Amino acid sequence: MMNPAKQTIGVCYYPEHWPESRWEEDARLMVAAGITHVRIGEFAWSKLEPNPGAYNFDWLDKSFDVLHRHGLKVVLGTPTATPPKWLVDRMPDMLAVDENGQIRGFGSRRHYCFSHEEYRKECARITTEFAERYGKHPALIAWQTDNEYGCHDTVLSYSDAALKGFRNWLAQKYQSPDAMNRAWGNIFWSMEYRSFDEVELPNLTVTEPNPAHVMDFRRYSSDQVKSFNKLQTDIIRKHSNAPIGHNFMGSYTDFDHYAVSEDLDIATWDSYPIGFLDRDSSDDENKARYLGVGDPDLQAFHHDLYRACGEVRNGAVDGRWWVMEQQPGPVNWAPYNPAPYPGAVELWAWEAFAAGAELVSYFRWRQPSFAQEQMHEALLLPNGEFNEGYHVCEKISKMLKQMDSKAQVVRADVALVFDYESQWAWEIQPQGKDFSYIELVMRYYRALRRQGINVDVIPPTKEAVTGRKLIIMPGMFNVSEDFAAALESSKAVILAGPRSGSKDENFQIVQDLPPGALRKLINIKITRVESRPPHSPVLLQDDLAFEGWREFVVPEAGVSASMQSEDGHDAIFENDRMIYLAGRPNAPLADYIVTAALDKAGVAATRLHRDIRVRDNNNVRYIFNYGPETIDCSELIGDAQLVFGAASLAPRSVTAYKL
Amino acid sequence: MMNPAKQTIGVCYYPEHWPESRWEEDARLMVAAGITHVRIGEFAWSKLEPNPGAYNFDWLDKSFDVLHRHGLKVVLGTPTATPPKWLVDRMPDMLAVDENGQIRGFGSRRHYCFSHEEYRKECARITTEFAERYGKHPALIAWQTDNEYGCHDTVLSYSDAALKGFRNWLAQKYQSPDAMNRAWGNIFWSMEYRSFDEVELPNLTVTEPNPAHVMDFRRYSSDQVKSFNKLQTDIIRKHSNAPIGHNFMGSYTDFDHYAVSEDLDIATWDSYPIGFLDRDSSDDENKARYLGVGDPDLQAFHHDLYRACGEVRNGAVDGRWWVMEQQPGPVNWAPYNPAPYPGAVELWAWEAFAAGAELVSYFRWRQPSFAQEQMHEALLLPNGEFNEGYHVCEKISKMLKQMDSKAQVVRADVALVFDYESQWAWEIQPQGKDFSYIELVMRYYRALRRQGINVDVIPPTKEAVTGRKLIIMPGMFNVSEDFAAALESSKAVILAGPRSGSKDENFQIVQDLPPGALRKLINIKITRVESRPPHSPVLLQDDLAFEGWREFVVPEAGVSASMQSEDGHDAIFENDRMIYLAGRPNAPLADYIVTAALDKAGVAATRLHRDIRVRDNNNVRYIFNYGPETIDCSELIGDAQLVFGAASLAPRSVTAYKL
Amino acid sequence: MMNPAKQTIGVCYYPEHWPESRWEEDARLMVAAGITHVRIGEFAWSKLEPNPGAYNFDWLDKSFDVLHRHGLKVVLGTPTATPPKWLVDRMPDMLAVDENGQIRGFGSRRHYCFSHEEYRKECARITTEFAERYGKHPALIAWQTDNEYGCHDTVLSYSDAALKGFRNWLAQKYQSPDAMNRAWGNIFWSMEYRSFDEVELPNLTVTEPNPAHVMDFRRYSSDQVKSFNKLQTDIIRKHSNAPIGHNFMGSYTDFDHYAVSEDLDIATWDSYPIGFLDRDSSDDENKARYLGVGDPDLQAFHHDLYRACGEVRNGAVDGRWWVMEQQPGPVNWAPYNPAPYPGAVELWAWEAFAAGAELVSYFRWRQPSFAQEQMHEALLLPNGEFNEGYHVCEKISKMLKQMDSKAQVVRADVALVFDYESQWAWEIQPQGKDFSYIELVMRYYRALRRQGINVDVIPPTKEAVTGRKLIIMPGMFNVSEDFAAALESSKAVILAGPRSGSKDENFQIVQDLPPGALRKLINIKITRVESRPPHSPVLLQDDLAFEGWREFVVPEAGVSASMQSEDGHDAIFENDRMIYLAGRPNAPLADYIVTAALDKAGVAATRLHRDIRVRDNNNVRYIFNYGPETIDCSELIGDAQLVFGAASLAPRSVTAYKL
Ligand SMILES: [Zn+2]
Ligand SMILES: [Zn+2]
Ligand SMILES: [Zn+2]
Repeated sequence: MMNPAKQTIGVCYYPEHWPESRWEEDARLMVAAGITHVRIGEFAWSKLEPNPGAYNFDWLDKSFDVLHRHGLKVVLGTPTATPPKWLVDRMPDMLAVDENGQIRGFGSRRHYCFSHEEYRKECARITTEFAERYGKHPALIAWQTDNEYGCHDTVLSYSDAALKGFRNWLAQKYQSPDAMNRAWGNIFWSMEYRSFDEVELPNLTVTEPNPAHVMDFRRYSSDQVKSFNKLQTDIIRKHSNAPIGHNFMGSYTDFDHYAVSEDLDIATWDSYPIGFLDRDSSDDENKARYLGVGDPDLQAFHHDLYRACGEVRNGAVDGRWWVMEQQPGPVNWAPYNPAPYPGAVELWAWEAFAAGAELVSYFRWRQPSFAQEQMHEALLLPNGEFNEGYHVCEKISKMLKQMDSKAQVVRADVALVFDYESQWAWEIQPQGKDFSYIELVMRYYRALRRQGINVDVIPPTKEAVTGRKLIIMPGMFNVSEDFAAALESSKAVILAGPRSGSKDENFQIVQDLPPGALRKLINIKITRVESRPPHSPVLLQDDLAFEGWREFVVPEAGVSASMQSEDGHDAIFENDRMIYLAGRPNAPLADYIVTAALDKAGVAATRLHRDIRVRDNNNVRYIFNYGPETIDCSELIGDAQLVFGAASLAPRSVTAYKL
Repeated sequence: MMNPAKQTIGVCYYPEHWPESRWEEDARLMVAAGITHVRIGEFAWSKLEPNPGAYNFDWLDKSFDVLHRHGLKVVLGTPTATPPKWLVDRMPDMLAVDENGQIRGFGSRRHYCFSHEEYRKECARITTEFAERYGKHPALIAWQTDNEYGCHDTVLSYSDAALKGFRNWLAQKYQSPDAMNRAWGNIFWSMEYRSFDEVELPNLTVTEPNPAHVMDFRRYSSDQVKSFNKLQTDIIRKHSNAPIGHNFMGSYTDFDHYAVSEDLDIATWDSYPIGFLDRDSSDDENKARYLGVGDPDLQAFHHDLYRACGEVRNGAVDGRWWVMEQQPGPVNWAPYNPAPYPGAVELWAWEAFAAGAELVSYFRWRQPSFAQEQMHEALLLPNGEFNEGYHVCEKISKMLKQMDSKAQVVRADVALVFDYESQWAWEIQPQGKDFSYIELVMRYYRALRRQGINVDVIPPTKEAVTGRKLIIMPGMFNVSEDFAAALESSKAVILAGPRSGSKDENFQIVQDLPPGALRKLINIKITRVESRPPHSPVLLQDDLAFEGWREFVVPEAGVSASMQSEDGHDAIFENDRMIYLAGRPNAPLADYIVTAALDKAGVAATRLHRDIRVRDNNNVRYIFNYGPETIDCSELIGDAQLVFGAASLAPRSVTAYKL
Repeated sequence: MMNPAKQTIGVCYYPEHWPESRWEEDARLMVAAGITHVRIGEFAWSKLEPNPGAYNFDWLDKSFDVLHRHGLKVVLGTPTATPPKWLVDRMPDMLAVDENGQIRGFGSRRHYCFSHEEYRKECARITTEFAERYGKHPALIAWQTDNEYGCHDTVLSYSDAALKGFRNWLAQKYQSPDAMNRAWGNIFWSMEYRSFDEVELPNLTVTEPNPAHVMDFRRYSSDQVKSFNKLQTDIIRKHSNAPIGHNFMGSYTDFDHYAVSEDLDIATWDSYPIGFLDRDSSDDENKARYLGVGDPDLQAFHHDLYRACGEVRNGAVDGRWWVMEQQPGPVNWAPYNPAPYPGAVELWAWEAFAAGAELVSYFRWRQPSFAQEQMHEALLLPNGEFNEGYHVCEKISKMLKQMDSKAQVVRADVALVFDYESQWAWEIQPQGKDFSYIELVMRYYRALRRQGINVDVIPPTKEAVTGRKLIIMPGMFNVSEDFAAALESSKAVILAGPRSGSKDENFQIVQDLPPGALRKLINIKITRVESRPPHSPVLLQDDLAFEGWREFVVPEAGVSASMQSEDGHDAIFENDRMIYLAGRPNAPLADYIVTAALDKAGVAATRLHRDIRVRDNNNVRYIFNYGPETIDCSELIGDAQLVFGAASLAPRSVTAYKL
């Protein structure tokens, strides 16, 4: 980065929940904890416009003033995730409709369909009010559009508005029904359409709909999120120079975050390490081990992913990313909600800062005693007393100042492609019921982290692959000719498979068989794939195995094959540029193949202890101990100068040293 | 009791299923088996009013006459659980609507919405017909209103009638929308309402609705059951002096049974020990052990609960309760339907009589060969021959006469609070997905039974706690100031926690933190709670542990803490009056804490064999062996005089001796 | 058979998916592989009638011509499983409605309700066009009506059309509502109807509907499939002499296949051995063992079942059956889709031919690169190159010619009754949740196969039981007096139970208790049944046990009882003609009882290795090794003359020798 930002602490604040008389005290305590950024406003529509057109901005003006007076910077959220009841009652068809045709009603949040034109006008109206009133306020440091697009599965809506929008979108894309029929292969099962107005949404069919039909609906739906967001960013930019962000979520892929990020200055995300642990597919031993600290790789992956999103608009040089919401204690929304282990809250902050976050902002300032999130802990207890997170803020903000810590991550030698369309593709067509694209990508990501590698997660673009030493791209659904050419000219070693390059953009099997355009890079042909249940992995050698997915590959000239399965099929295919893995690797095989690829690419690796992870930022290397035991890392550190921590890392602790 | 009732046997009878020519023989056989009470009428609407307004009471008159002639007493049920098709077709919107917005149609039973005003008028009409015709019949011994309110999840209806009723109910409760907004915390997520007519039912929201919103809907729905029932009892009382009951169900909590019981003279319930075994959360070893006899504590708990209900209207002195339907063989409605073990049917009867039941009435007289319950066994086989249950009746009725057995249970020293609102609260907000209020209460109840204690299950009222030595109240959602004061003045030792007193009546976290009003009794503050998955209990010492739930407690002056968890937090908090347990106890910990509390309260306890339970009534102590092996209980009995049975109890047998 | 047919190979072909320029090459390659039969047309409605009434038969004419020119025979399918969108838009209420009241929309296939009269007219119209145009084409060898009736659970539709049809059907069956009320037992729960127009479909009731109500709806729905099919066969027969078939499915029982077969000349079915493996209830060891070859008995059972269907119309002498679709590689629709083991595809073909199939036809010719089945492998790869299945065709077609193999199965001594109404009955009333009729029948079928027995699966008719030595009829819901008489006069040994003969045709418990009409054959009375969860089998002796179901039986004069359970009840009841088994046998008990019954019937049995199966056709005995190890079968073969294969069978191989 040109002007690396100082790393700092923020908080999410809801002055509307508390008496005005408390606001001064809140601001004073924030400053005392070293907090510099305060997000407000994003759910307050009913308070700001209690009756149609009758605004009440007084209280928000006062909130700005109080915070400003204390030197705090405001991140202002547009309130469009929670339209008030009167608005919904005026246009009830703005509500989204779920896959079963059920209207998703008022009474919580995100009760709108992205395709609804009239609701978009209402959003434009309230955003204009916000932008005009606060766009140049001296306390304003940034904007947030809406809140957590897609949360509660709200991207896909099967409403009349969506149907109308989808038909128009198809008409624009294909121009003629025949072109669409050919692209989708509608000759199959007599699904041919005579006009775009005959096309339905791909829900409630007798059996599965055409995957190409679903894929276009997924693209359409993702596009609606982008245009919904852009409507707001365009308005804001007319009235304000403050940068704009949106708070993305973890493990959420129903829209293309890169595409939305084209209209954002800062990518932010909401990190809940414990809440997410339950979602991963690891076994109980693993879940018990990391119960109060979270998966050692999942938040890290998202830091890397959203750092990539932060680079989309302005290019890597100006890429900026934040943790907009950081878990400070037990939450309310996971199946089980354990408390963080001692040290965990602090560890999470450093994991984000080490990944180049400018800001770690806690959710939220004070635990409300009421409504849906009353069991979600905050920096303050419901009665206003300090909770654990408050003290963590105090400590970390001091350390950041001492270190003069800045967000300055170096472009990584190793890049891992994460592609939203591929996620949709394999949700639409898993072929084996446990096949998940993001889980497949995570298998490689985890293996890289276990080797102590700094990874950039990247979109499949020419810009992102340029200058890398190693590019890993498992399961990428559609590899365009252009992207294959970019890979070829990148000089990087490529590790791909399984399923990489197996479909064209119309969700058809690539001509002359997979891996399609990748055959330019490695001359193989995949003639058969199989998916297998968990009780029947494909054993290779020792503890190496394919789990759930295996491909039968015919190598052609210049390709060597190695490592036969016990049933006699080659598993790994290689030439001087590229490695293709013909199945979904278990953890030992992921370690094996990643190590081989790093070696081929000339990237040095260090095999780490199961619980240890490392990460570099701003010429500092951070070491994280996610485990329950003290671990001696003095060999790793050598005689480098410690910034903080000790060479022997206590459970869930962090040590930093100068690079 | 002032005039303790003689304990006797009854049966549920459907003369409309059988030719009139058989009725005399049926009555004769009933009398021969010692049966004295016969319930009839409760599903017979279509037979009594085959066309609108065209009544046909002849057959029911004759049934009364036949039974009366044989000296049998009639319990008459109103037929409102099964309105005929013609009635439904005249007002189709009387049908209930499920949580997904689906109408619940005709074709089985309980096809009505409690909120439907027109259907209530129809119920009033048919009840008036019944009351006028049979209210003073010499055979009439009691009334039953409707049948199993709530069965098949029919309390909660999301119909238009319910919406209209709910809005009126809210208007009456809160008087102004602002008051409701404040009580619910609707400022959160812009859920503020400008009028009561903006409020929707709390289903089909995008994500979870406001818990306060749901809680009020649960209260509203429970109130509808009460007023629906009261409509009938008011009519009946105008025409009849016979006492009125309703047959409640086991493990069913969707309405407040205490509140409905305010309008009943007798609480009755339907006991199916084998059918319920499958619902409990115990392991397969336990389920296999008690397969043909049922859980040793579940029916006992309900006996105690409904004895409490029987006391609500007239106070404990006149409290009356019955088993209205007792399982006599395999049933049809559980996932699996095993046969009772030899001895089990008899054991169940004594468990009820020992708990003070006036009547144990079998369901049903003769197994029908047709319709939904054709696989539900009865006292007679479908062909009219004797089944096992008939012979059990013969035997028990003789023994009751020999013993001159009366319903006379002494008020227990130990009371266990069971509170319906708490059940709703933790269904609405489990916070950990396996958290269940009734299951938590059962953990304490089982521990008490394992110590050989007679327990009164009680509502949270001043009357119920007065004069106790020990009061146990785990998980009680909202402890009012009044109830806390009643506890304080009761002189009893109090055992509470976890979650006790954590919310106010508006489903908000109590001011200045839990346990709220209980802080008068024990000065502690709960600053954090966590829920944990089954793989990660909180280990204390030896085999004692918290399962799923743990609280972090700050003791203040006068409170001592003991028993640290392995991760270093205190688990038990105590002063001279009260014990607070900071988590959900596993069985060993429940035994430990209950034993400690009994000791503190000066109540003598005897640790029983796993399969043995005891219970006192009418100066007789009953010993039950629920297990598969013969168990010698001579030490327990000492030199007391045996009433029946032997000191060495065969599997599933009962022994009784004089106290 | 009088003129046994030569056994041959076919394929399913979709010329409309590929350029016309390729058709010649396709035909040439088919002939080269020994393929003689080609099925076409069954999903091509939109291509044949792109606009209402504007037909485009040119391409189909050309397809016929190309195939004809190469000497290939055409099986022509009517396209009624996939009506085009324009047709659906003209009559949207033709769509089926699922059990939840949800319309099942356009976008895949089978989007029609069998009860819709207007859609039937459209089917008659297009079938007439087909029949007139191709009914006498020299290439035409057979017809197929529609495609896989019932696939995707499409037999049961809860539409308005179905409601109207059902009411009429009831009126015709019962003539008066009172007769229906009596038959169903509607007096129970006041379910009495005053007119047929008051009857609803049996979905969306508050709790379970009357089983008799559901049973009649199941019968009605099955009848609709029969009449829907007959509409087409009647039209076809007016214009064509070619025989007519329909491709049934595996493990599919929602309509009576015997009844539909009354209107068919050939029964065909679609065999996917790997795809079905996942559906059976065996354990993981078994599923892993047979992962790539399928269950050793499931396809065999269906071969026997559809051979029986092929005999319905013309009697056994002319019975004909085909495998219309045979899996040639991994498919796309099972939860997991493994590849066939080496040898498996060939083994499947021989298993069919050994069971008397005239034709084994592969699905499909070439894997499409597009739409729903793009991951379903075919004889050719998507790029037109050979896949494994093509080479298997080449090989098998040559062997068939060498052997001059004909479809000629001898009527078996042992018959196993499979009855569709019984399947519906126990779906409606499982009584224990894991009770499945077809699974119960399979327990006996497997035991027979393990003893090396050729079995005929039969409908419960006099014709089918005549001349047998042993008839096995577990779980047969309703044994009519006529069928009991047929059994009696058959001279065969009868093995029945559990649940056999327990209900009458109105779904009432038989008068004077089960086994009802079977009491003529064995004088016992079943007084109690119980269902038990998997953790609690009823142990008999050694490893013999009842799983899930046990009956308590009172034997009367002439019946001897044997084999007591550990809890003291007799398990097996026998007289000189009949054996009644009082529970659901585990595999060892099934072996035991089947062996005893074979012995009693004087049928010789040979206990086979776990992986070995045998089957006779056309004076040849086939031995199949479904297992992973080489197995020496020389003892089995003795000095018979080998037709192909070796006495030592490699994994998944077949050996044949002259009988
Ligand atoms: Zn502090
Ligand atoms: Zn008797
Ligand atoms: Zn070949």
